[in-house]
Amino acid sequence: MPDSSRIIALDVHDVRFPTSEHLDGSDAMNPEPDYSAAYVVLRTDAPDGLEGHALAFTTGRGNDVQANAIAALTPYVVGRAVAEVCADLGGFARSLVHDPQLRWLGPEKGVIHMATGAVVNAAWDLAAKRAGKPVWRFLGEMSPEELVGQVDFRWLSDALSADDALDILRRAQPGRQERIELLLARGYPAYTTSPGWLGYSDEKLTRLARVAVAEGFTQIKLKVGAALEDDVRRMKTARAAVGDDVRIAVDANQRWDVQPAIDWMRQLASYHPYWIEEPTSPDDIMGHAAIRRAVQPIKVATGEHVANRVVFKQLLQTHAVDIVQIDAARVGGINENIAILLLAAKFGVPVCPHAGGVGLCEMVQHLAMFDYVAVSATLQDRVIEYVDHLHEHFVDPVRIRDGRYAAPTLPGLSAQMRPASLAEYAYPDGPAWAARG
Amino acid sequence: MPDSSRIIALDVHDVRFPTSEHLDGSDAMNPEPDYSAAYVVLRTDAPDGLEGHALAFTTGRGNDVQANAIAALTPYVVGRAVAEVCADLGGFARSLVHDPQLRWLGPEKGVIHMATGAVVNAAWDLAAKRAGKPVWRFLGEMSPEELVGQVDFRWLSDALSADDALDILRRAQPGRQERIELLLARGYPAYTTSPGWLGYSDEKLTRLARVAVAEGFTQIKLKVGAALEDDVRRMKTARAAVGDDVRIAVDANQRWDVQPAIDWMRQLASYHPYWIEEPTSPDDIMGHAAIRRAVQPIKVATGEHVANRVVFKQLLQTHAVDIVQIDAARVGGINENIAILLLAAKFGVPVCPHAGGVGLCEMVQHLAMFDYVAVSATLQDRVIEYVDHLHEHFVDPVRIRDGRYAAPTLPGLSAQMRPASLAEYAYPDGPAWAARG
Repeated sequence: MPDSSRIIALDVHDVRFPTSEHLDGSDAMNPEPDYSAAYVVLRTDAPDGLEGHALAFTTGRGNDVQANAIAALTPYVVGRAVAEVCADLGGFARSLVHDPQLRWLGPEKGVIHMATGAVVNAAWDLAAKRAGKPVWRFLGEMSPEELVGQVDFRWLSDALSADDALDILRRAQPGRQERIELLLARGYPAYTTSPGWLGYSDEKLTRLARVAVAEGFTQIKLKVGAALEDDVRRMKTARAAVGDDVRIAVDANQRWDVQPAIDWMRQLASYHPYWIEEPTSPDDIMGHAAIRRAVQPIKVATGEHVANRVVFKQLLQTHAVDIVQIDAARVGGINENIAILLLAAKFGVPVCPHAGGVGLCEMVQHLAMFDYVAVSATLQDRVIEYVDHLHEHFVDPVRIRDGRYAAPTLPGLSAQMRPASLAEYAYPDGPAWAARG
Repeated sequence: MPDSSRIIALDVHDVRFPTSEHLDGSDAMNPEPDYSAAYVVLRTDAPDGLEGHALAFTTGRGNDVQANAIAALTPYVVGRAVAEVCADLGGFARSLVHDPQLRWLGPEKGVIHMATGAVVNAAWDLAAKRAGKPVWRFLGEMSPEELVGQVDFRWLSDALSADDALDILRRAQPGRQERIELLLARGYPAYTTSPGWLGYSDEKLTRLARVAVAEGFTQIKLKVGAALEDDVRRMKTARAAVGDDVRIAVDANQRWDVQPAIDWMRQLASYHPYWIEEPTSPDDIMGHAAIRRAVQPIKVATGEHVANRVVFKQLLQTHAVDIVQIDAARVGGINENIAILLLAAKFGVPVCPHAGGVGLCEMVQHLAMFDYVAVSATLQDRVIEYVDHLHEHFVDPVRIRDGRYAAPTLPGLSAQMRPASLAEYAYPDGPAWAARG
């Protein structure tokens, strides 16, 4: 019997966690974030109650703006046939991105693009659940031709054509099944940011860094950029805590102009930072290129605030970054992230996803694992960020074992939150917020 | 007596005009726009009823998202002392841009940045009205030091420091008063896009192009990018209509990838287009640079969708554009546009503002005239876009004489709409929309 079910509702929840109370997540540009989700549920009239769940991440105020933007996409989604959406997720994503009136609000950046990304990701959750597979495997078992059909190549052809993409995907076809088995057996490497928040004392940093090494992590990350003296001391403290064999990345969260970034990093260089993340504006391609030239061999990384594939394209064309940090909830959803993974593969640059926040670890692990199975086909110098916040609110939370992400096995994108959490942290009327007045 | 008045309300109106019915404003990426304004009014308790008016422009759907984002800024504005805001508009703008939670929604791009721009511009309208001056003159009579205080130099220092800005402004100090007089006497040069919408017939194009020349315009603009054969014919038609001495700019509204842009422009080259506007993605700095190298002597222009000063900085650093097209309602308001004018002056690139839409002509004329008075100090190769749409809805509409913008003389930013228009075109409940069902 053909599937005649339809998407009958797009629900949006404004969910916020009072993380600012403990300075978890504190950095040089985000001193007091309340990690939040503009959370979307696509409901269908399928007999099995099929739904799609995903979210846009914010840091508190403005989560209502993001939720409103998602709700504005309702007429583009509700009423669509589930089978048609699932059969052409590339077409579905393009129909949202290219709406000739909505695109003025970006184009393809900021609030409207993150809203598109949340809805597109919810459609992938729905499609993967319908197929009975976790998203990483759902993607990893698509043919190269199907995968190329997911990508919007507009504005990419000077760096990546559909033929280039097909070549990359076909080269990675041999060994797909073996890599799926390896992921299921051993998981995907992670690094942890949990020791390094700016608001933590040196004692807490030392303790958490040692815990991280004991737990099997081979890379940790420190937030930097508020005060040079403090950063030198914290970097020295962290190096003493973990020894010479553990990589220490540092993250300035966009704090610097170009020359200050170079000067600051030279002061930290003797402690061998592995990469400097977000040294300056995420829009500043030329700035990243200049910083990279000056601070080698320290690597330059960015991505969590990079607005879209066109900016990633240029970061790669100009050799401005050593590490591409995709984010599951910043760009226009899985479709655009497939384009970014293909661009990184074309230029031979490793992808080390940004995560943390709310649900970002849960979602982005699927993209990294798909990359390993079907795009780059390697784990060399690849790690997914891990932060031990807020996973308890998810139905299928990430599982870390020996410093690695265990491969998800439940169908979907792992972004579904527990109903009790959605209710407790609903903003502003949920019990968690009502109690705080 | 000190001014103890405060901002007591931030009102937002969703106002839309059914322009799609006549294909006014039709281009290759925006086939059927309904020109719209997310319109903001800052109300005060000043005894004279002082208010500040400005707007964010959109093309229809999504205007509610933009209006919601503006409304979300209410707690940052309401309750502030009028005298304090007016004494430090630079600080006011920075307080909105750098809010550590809201900035996640951009940073400094898209819906949240346009919302900031609308509120900042409304504060400038309020401040200029309070000073009894049109904004161009209010700005043009500030000291170089005051003007530098308006600018957020974060992320600019590798291209423009505060000292550079001060040098530029001091160099332009002699002759300010003379240029003010010249503007009042003769106005500022304009060009017109009215003949060239993609939806118009060749006959209408010819007729309107001849009217434009008869009215004193020395430059017109055609929309291109939908079909090459049509564009060649329309370019030939326009050239025949206006002769060899009138500049014809063409505008692709982001339609092309890099190589297609080059190929297409080579087909139009024999009709001597003056500039190609938005040949590709507004985020594609390297793409614009490549196109510019290939299509010289045709000039490359962009800006109406350039998200912020950091992207303009790079377009200038890489010699990617010949013309900087500021827009009054895309970036973070007058403060950021001052930064962009200073960047353009530093690199010696003329500014030819984007206008049209709703109220964009009214607002941006103030920036171009300020540039002439106090920044670039020249009119050489400078023109402001003019489109003859929707001016009747403004209290102080632009006045075009002999192909030039007459300098506004009423206090403020000229963005204030007539109450009857706000009511008639309120969306979705105003009479104009209720009648359309």
